[in-house]
Amino acid sequence: MCRPSRALTTRVIGATIGSSLPSRSSKPRRQLSRTFGTSAACLQSTPPDIERSGDKRVIEKSQSLKSHNAPFPRRSHHCGSLSVKDAGSSVTLTGWLLPGRKVGKALYFYPLKDPHGTIQLAVSSAVGGGETLELMRSIPVESTVIIEGVVSERPPKQKRALPGGDIEVTVTSCTLLNPAEQPLPFVPSDEYNLPAEEFRLRYRYLDLRRSVISGNLRKRSQVAHLIRTTLHDHGFVEVETPVLLKSTPEGAREFLVPTRTATSTPSVKSSIGATRRESFTQPLFYALPQSPQQPKQLLIASGAVDRYYQIARCFRDEDGRKDRQPEFTQIDLEMAWVSWGDYPSNNNYGQKDSDSWRIGGKEVRETIEHLIRKVWSAVEGIELPSSFTVMTYEEAMGRFGSDKPDTRFSLELQLVTDRFPQPVRDALANEDQILETLVIRSTDTQFKSAAEKVGLYEAAMSDGAYMVRVLSDGTLNTASRDGSFGILGTPSTVRDALELNPGDTAWLAKRPRTAEGGSTALGRLRLLLATLAQAAGELVLPAAPHFLWVTEFPLFTRADPDKEFLAHGRWSSSHHPFTAPMWEDIEKMYDGRIAEVRGQHYDLVLNGVEIGGGSVRVHDAKMQEHIFGKILQLSEDEKASFSHLLHALRCGAPPHGGIALGFDRLMAILCKTESIRDVIAFPKTGAGTDLLFKSPAPVESEDVLRQYGITQALVVDA
Amino acid sequence: MCRPSRALTTRVIGATIGSSLPSRSSKPRRQLSRTFGTSAACLQSTPPDIERSGDKRVIEKSQSLKSHNAPFPRRSHHCGSLSVKDAGSSVTLTGWLLPGRKVGKALYFYPLKDPHGTIQLAVSSAVGGGETLELMRSIPVESTVIIEGVVSERPPKQKRALPGGDIEVTVTSCTLLNPAEQPLPFVPSDEYNLPAEEFRLRYRYLDLRRSVISGNLRKRSQVAHLIRTTLHDHGFVEVETPVLLKSTPEGAREFLVPTRTATSTPSVKSSIGATRRESFTQPLFYALPQSPQQPKQLLIASGAVDRYYQIARCFRDEDGRKDRQPEFTQIDLEMAWVSWGDYPSNNNYGQKDSDSWRIGGKEVRETIEHLIRKVWSAVEGIELPSSFTVMTYEEAMGRFGSDKPDTRFSLELQLVTDRFPQPVRDALANEDQILETLVIRSTDTQFKSAAEKVGLYEAAMSDGAYMVRVLSDGTLNTASRDGSFGILGTPSTVRDALELNPGDTAWLAKRPRTAEGGSTALGRLRLLLATLAQAAGELVLPAAPHFLWVTEFPLFTRADPDKEFLAHGRWSSSHHPFTAPMWEDIEKMYDGRIAEVRGQHYDLVLNGVEIGGGSVRVHDAKMQEHIFGKILQLSEDEKASFSHLLHALRCGAPPHGGIALGFDRLMAILCKTESIRDVIAFPKTGAGTDLLFKSPAPVESEDVLRQYGITQALVVDA
Repeated sequence: MCRPSRALTTRVIGATIGSSLPSRSSKPRRQLSRTFGTSAACLQSTPPDIERSGDKRVIEKSQSLKSHNAPFPRRSHHCGSLSVKDAGSSVTLTGWLLPGRKVGKALYFYPLKDPHGTIQLAVSSAVGGGETLELMRSIPVESTVIIEGVVSERPPKQKRALPGGDIEVTVTSCTLLNPAEQPLPFVPSDEYNLPAEEFRLRYRYLDLRRSVISGNLRKRSQVAHLIRTTLHDHGFVEVETPVLLKSTPEGAREFLVPTRTATSTPSVKSSIGATRRESFTQPLFYALPQSPQQPKQLLIASGAVDRYYQIARCFRDEDGRKDRQPEFTQIDLEMAWVSWGDYPSNNNYGQKDSDSWRIGGKEVRETIEHLIRKVWSAVEGIELPSSFTVMTYEEAMGRFGSDKPDTRFSLELQLVTDRFPQPVRDALANEDQILETLVIRSTDTQFKSAAEKVGLYEAAMSDGAYMVRVLSDGTLNTASRDGSFGILGTPSTVRDALELNPGDTAWLAKRPRTAEGGSTALGRLRLLLATLAQAAGELVLPAAPHFLWVTEFPLFTRADPDKEFLAHGRWSSSHHPFTAPMWEDIEKMYDGRIAEVRGQHYDLVLNGVEIGGGSVRVHDAKMQEHIFGKILQLSEDEKASFSHLLHALRCGAPPHGGIALGFDRLMAILCKTESIRDVIAFPKTGAGTDLLFKSPAPVESEDVLRQYGITQALVVDA
Repeated sequence: MCRPSRALTTRVIGATIGSSLPSRSSKPRRQLSRTFGTSAACLQSTPPDIERSGDKRVIEKSQSLKSHNAPFPRRSHHCGSLSVKDAGSSVTLTGWLLPGRKVGKALYFYPLKDPHGTIQLAVSSAVGGGETLELMRSIPVESTVIIEGVVSERPPKQKRALPGGDIEVTVTSCTLLNPAEQPLPFVPSDEYNLPAEEFRLRYRYLDLRRSVISGNLRKRSQVAHLIRTTLHDHGFVEVETPVLLKSTPEGAREFLVPTRTATSTPSVKSSIGATRRESFTQPLFYALPQSPQQPKQLLIASGAVDRYYQIARCFRDEDGRKDRQPEFTQIDLEMAWVSWGDYPSNNNYGQKDSDSWRIGGKEVRETIEHLIRKVWSAVEGIELPSSFTVMTYEEAMGRFGSDKPDTRFSLELQLVTDRFPQPVRDALANEDQILETLVIRSTDTQFKSAAEKVGLYEAAMSDGAYMVRVLSDGTLNTASRDGSFGILGTPSTVRDALELNPGDTAWLAKRPRTAEGGSTALGRLRLLLATLAQAAGELVLPAAPHFLWVTEFPLFTRADPDKEFLAHGRWSSSHHPFTAPMWEDIEKMYDGRIAEVRGQHYDLVLNGVEIGGGSVRVHDAKMQEHIFGKILQLSEDEKASFSHLLHALRCGAPPHGGIALGFDRLMAILCKTESIRDVIAFPKTGAGTDLLFKSPAPVESEDVLRQYGITQALVVDA
């Protein structure tokens, strides 16, 4: 194919320090007039004739290359924004120069990459007397350049079905803006030779250059903006709440921030037998919020806004957990006047219905469903149903053995207490227990081989389940770790009670009549079976996301030693102490039937992952005081830390409720990655270490600490 | 005026705890059929017959009122969204009940307020057998209620020119949702009886209910969203950068965050004459960022995005300054490939022109001008010019004696060295000084009386200026604190040199030939004159905002003892050490002519207030190292804290630049308030104290601190 001849100019390359302005015409104009040979595919990952940047000659040459500090022109296009329509246009492009390939005696192809895409540059030795090509050959991979050139359509055979794969840019001039050192710690464009994550985190500024991470960040920004726009359209007001807040006894541990500006009066401590006077300053601290829960409730209580939102940074000083970050982002919202919706004209109200929302906070539900539908439509191209399934905690635990059931597959638990004789039922009733089963029939095409894989061992391992398998010859295999299934009688009794046939497998487990906690033994077994069934290729999960609301959680749970700071009695709050009880259970709460009280809490679950949760809050100060004092039995000091909230409720706070969605987790799901680190620009490791900024770190000197009234702690081993 | 009769129902009021669902029809239906009397104006601030909520009877009655915890219906409208078009509609409203007035034998008016507006409720004793009126009369002011009623147009005489002033809502039922305690600390709707700010900050949840603060928060949210939308439209990507960052020696003092999770190996310290072993743990800290400067530069260096923005929370641990907050918000952006614009085709380039942008970063300028135009158009209805005036630092200092000149008034300084005889000129030259003057002529209508007010005293006070006033009889008054003006000769010499006539006043001051710092004595005097001239009513500033770019600041300033941690030699960075020199001055920089080096820094000034600043950054690692090592003479440890940035520059960083605007200050200007606390939901005092959350505060116990490897510091007085 013959390309048109064209007058081209070369620019003086690599401005030296303090040089005068580079002139566009400091080199004589030359005519470029040649026939381009057949070019091979560009954008191919490792072409055989690639110029390796590790080449010693290239390294030596590149060390003499300088950064360009003089003026340069504006870019005209992104690398990813050009198309065949631009053929014939002169363009100015900027980007990272990737390894080139020789494709003819005097013709080279170089991919030029920016965050928007990659374009093929064609550079001939005829340009600028060969200086341009010589320069480009000397430029180390991943250096930044500014290119002037002309867009042309590739010959049909050379077109590739990639963005920009049908065009190339014939280079007329190249200016090196900033050379990349050689060798780089790793080459981000060489996706087949990436080092381990920990190494890449140290050089995050190279890792971020990878298209996949760069794409995740852009998607995150797009989703955040879509969420904001949708919420603004629904009358939400974005309000920034303090990051420097006060320590509260609310949940996981907080980060403290010592202050210089406000050290209180020293508390004098007499030093025995010493003439010098010693005193301890009392250091004062802010704390970083685990969520904006208190500020947002105070804001709504104030009446300044009736719909609040914030994409809020939150902080949790937890011992490193895999895939947790000490700082994370929440889509946080709160609404005044949240109601029961169209009640009492809604005839379904109060009906036992598996898809009914029987609590307050209807406006929160509607807002979130609308928001999620918008996001899935824009990002995934999936139109979600106009409302999501609602399931009570009790139903979720009974059918799926989980408070965040994965409803993409149907395998369900069954309550089988009544299939056993009266003595068994009496024994269970005495323990206030029920008996549940999970059965895989020999005719099951999805879980049969998974059930065989789980086998005796897994059944015994699955904390307290009892397995009965009917072999093909009718004989029975059983397994359990626990002798307590003796009450069920012989394996044959169980087989008969559950009507098991040859090839069937059943697991049985007891659990308290009133469900507790996040999952049961059979619930965990159900997930294990699904994992194995997927691995075996027998279970294929639907592509469509399964969103689910779980509601009506128990408001209080038996006190957990981990939460002792928030519960000195028998009970602690299942979620947080501001959640309102269901109005039907208020009397029970005041009567002390605490286990029976359900909260107006709602969790949003996606494919078995909890992506958010919230509640209608207590707006009645007397009720809130009862919960703090009588149920949670908080100390006076602890109650004092909530005194401003209680007072705000007393000043005419509207009924209100809200929710928070985990934005990092949501983005990880939308970016189809397992790790939230892939959707955070500068993440920390599971241990809370920032390998790039090398933090946390010691402070320079003890004097710095003393400004805050603190010092290194002395550890004494007796 | 006769209103139509209508069947109305009354709802049982104030659900008791654990009560069954309130029934809509638990009271017999009644016919309301009466002629409404002439109603007085509602929404009037203190009508004579107002029902005072401090009334003892009301307080007693209200104490028996309970919060409503049972279901209630969805609201149908905002109080501010109703208009005459809704006349005849049944509505469900929620809001705060304000003090009512009796307007007829059996008719009361109550304003109902929500964040969107206020509407007049009309309630008759005929509704629900009088129970509704009785309830409403017992409801304390600022309580929250849910109202059902019917919208009607007011009789023409009763219409008021206020939003909603032409309609009212005839109440059919009222439910008290939450009673407000009596007395409240203050009544937010009673704007004429507000307590001092400090008191209101303690009860911020009441203060926020005031319409002015609530309006500010809504405007802030509107502007933030407009900014985000505009930046998204311009290809900017919002990226969240870490709040838990590493301490850097960059500027003002940082907040430290001690960590529990990562305490390094103890550094053993032997204890003399003791058998026990003592050791100090080495506590490790994050630091909160003063700005996202380093993360944003690393992000752009990475190439992940080429246009970054964030509305970012920043932290500064400064000793309390008036109108500063320890946490504040910046509109932060950074762009790769910022250029000289259409250079070199732009013929103005390099011309000495008072309105030319001769540095890089053209794309930053354009983005910000576009953004500001959008905001002023949407919020203020003002169409700003398509580009803002540009002035070099040198020109700003010469003409206005300020690096952030208020150009809304024209009073300018003049350079007058040359009007004096050679010996004077020589003396000034020896000191490398110049002589400037500010003259108010007797014919000046704007500043004449201000000049007289400033008088002898102020002239002497204005740090080093020399004043000469020609009285009407031709005699001369002079004032100065400083004998150094003797070189100018007698007052008559000065009068003649400046051609002063009777009634004229002139101030003279010397300053270094190369301008330094933020303002000169005459610059400060100029602002004082303007303040006095405004107070005298002679100077009226134009309503249109005056935006101005100030560019070409000196890159380095003589080291300031406050900044010693960033400069061990003679020089410190005027802004920050990442600012690039103007390319024309690079050679001077390497040659050690440091005072002459101008930076590619730009400040955005509005009406004499700096609202933002930024720069083109150094992208050349060798240049950055020269600045760190040779000019600022940083220690190895200090340089090490920038090592990741230097390495990122070496890995092919693109040329880049950015800016940050102070969002709190910008909003204070748009909300026409002097205090940024009025545009922050939960502000701290100037001393950094949060009076609502009562932070900072001591931690509960020493044990908590020990988890972080720290303890209270012991202070020893010998």
